[in-house]
Amino acid sequence: MRAGLDIGGTKTDAVAIDGAGTVRARVRLATGWGSDAVVRTVVDAVSALAAELGLPVAAFASVGIGIPGRIEPGSTRVRHAVNLGIDELDLAAAVGPELGLPVAVQNDVKAAALGAAALVGATGTLAYLNVGTGVAAGIVVDGRLWAGASGTAGEVGHLSIDADGPLCTCGQHGCVEAFSGGGAVARRWDRPGELPIRDVFDAADAGDAFAIELRDGIGYGVSAAIRALVLTVDAGTVVLGGGITMLGDRLMAVVGAELERSADASPFIRSLRLDQRVRVLPAGSPVAAIGAALVGADRDTEEVLAHG
Amino acid sequence: MRAGLDIGGTKTDAVAIDGAGTVRARVRLATGWGSDAVVRTVVDAVSALAAELGLPVAAFASVGIGIPGRIEPGSTRVRHAVNLGIDELDLAAAVGPELGLPVAVQNDVKAAALGAAALVGATGTLAYLNVGTGVAAGIVVDGRLWAGASGTAGEVGHLSIDADGPLCTCGQHGCVEAFSGGGAVARRWDRPGELPIRDVFDAADAGDAFAIELRDGIGYGVSAAIRALVLTVDAGTVVLGGGITMLGDRLMAVVGAELERSADASPFIRSLRLDQRVRVLPAGSPVAAIGAALVGADRDTEEVLAHG
Repeated sequence: MRAGLDIGGTKTDAVAIDGAGTVRARVRLATGWGSDAVVRTVVDAVSALAAELGLPVAAFASVGIGIPGRIEPGSTRVRHAVNLGIDELDLAAAVGPELGLPVAVQNDVKAAALGAAALVGATGTLAYLNVGTGVAAGIVVDGRLWAGASGTAGEVGHLSIDADGPLCTCGQHGCVEAFSGGGAVARRWDRPGELPIRDVFDAADAGDAFAIELRDGIGYGVSAAIRALVLTVDAGTVVLGGGITMLGDRLMAVVGAELERSADASPFIRSLRLDQRVRVLPAGSPVAAIGAALVGADRDTEEVLAHG
Repeated sequence: MRAGLDIGGTKTDAVAIDGAGTVRARVRLATGWGSDAVVRTVVDAVSALAAELGLPVAAFASVGIGIPGRIEPGSTRVRHAVNLGIDELDLAAAVGPELGLPVAVQNDVKAAALGAAALVGATGTLAYLNVGTGVAAGIVVDGRLWAGASGTAGEVGHLSIDADGPLCTCGQHGCVEAFSGGGAVARRWDRPGELPIRDVFDAADAGDAFAIELRDGIGYGVSAAIRALVLTVDAGTVVLGGGITMLGDRLMAVVGAELERSADASPFIRSLRLDQRVRVLPAGSPVAAIGAALVGADRDTEEVLAHG
């Protein structure tokens, strides 16, 4: 049995998977703020998983943690995770002694890419496109994460697709993320409401011109990211995940319309059969936690353990 | 000794490389038009290489051919090579009997990517960005071509970077190729002259406003392709090749200016150190022929020979 945790800015999603990759337990906790509280969240989540299974914590072979931010390959050190109040923290060193288990750490989107590949069962090249507050992808080739030269593989959120487009927090104009990221859309929409993206879709349905522009921009950005992933790594499968999947079919309606528009314009783009490559994860699917558990398992198998 | 041929629309470039990958002979011939004439060009080129070395044709262990168009992985069949007057042709079957040698065929840009990786000696992920009549890239990982799901890996020429940009022959607007491809630029420039791209740069230097727009567009497209290759596969090295390299430093001045502009706008883009990843091949470098020879060698080693 292996534990996998997806530590988000507000919630931590944790799963226990067995040797066949089946989820045997799942718990969700509020994420604490700051290094000490995040460490406590990890320990509490693993303990809660064990309790749900009726097993001791020592029954887990490994703990894998997906967390926002850039993690050096093979490292367990988290840096500048501003949303979590962490400046720098070696998570394995911090939780290892208390748990007594090997701990692996991976960027949350990359972990989710591994989880998505396992869920979809895709061989070959799969891209996982996460559309949440930000936009980023993870690329998986034959079950392994694509590392790249410097850890920036899959950063399609910062491809500029319109030099005159909206300003991105990265400083460029017209990035995919500036069109489709939940944070960017909420800032541009700038009206009160708990779920700005859903409000935008609702207002667009009601005929609000600015909401229609924002909604269509979301579809434009996501479809451009899909095209970019196919025209570079030739991903056979592109899995859409992240917060935006709460929109379900409403999301795919605008993305599908944009894909269709580009296929109508270009026989070459049509030949890529982009619509047939795209799959949308069910909202709330614990891919990042599942992928994190696989990262832990992988570390364990490779015997590059971090025992804290 | 291995022969490698780069069959272009007007010229065929052929090299003989030894076991260490060193070019031992090089010949250039006019490419014949139509299947029979292309077959004759291949046979003539291999014979001329052998003559230059003072060896019989049978001294070659293999013949590798780079040719425009999509080649199915492992296939030696060329389809719809309109610039060569070929509708469909199994090149190995056609030239094999006369040469008595194993023949491998690969798309010319992909062959050039292998040749560029061998020349540069890069490990890890290298992207070869060919800017000629069209724009396309080949991606090489640890000396092997990135296959992808459907043979469209590296087709960054058809990434749209401006929905209101110039119409591309593919049907989309604002493709990288529509900004930077020699064919597209020549059509937009639309003035008599033997080397339209050079004319554009000359006229831009002389202050012609439209020429400046076209020249800066070339830099914009090439720099966008470089960013796309780094933000997806995280290529550690991006090698620029193709006809446009005849511009030498004048090309890198406009590409460098665009890379600098994006780095000035975005600390994230600056952190990628794009300028340090880019290398420009010397004009006339026979990378595609060298890469084709390596394709032939690879086939030979793998014993997936096509004896015609």
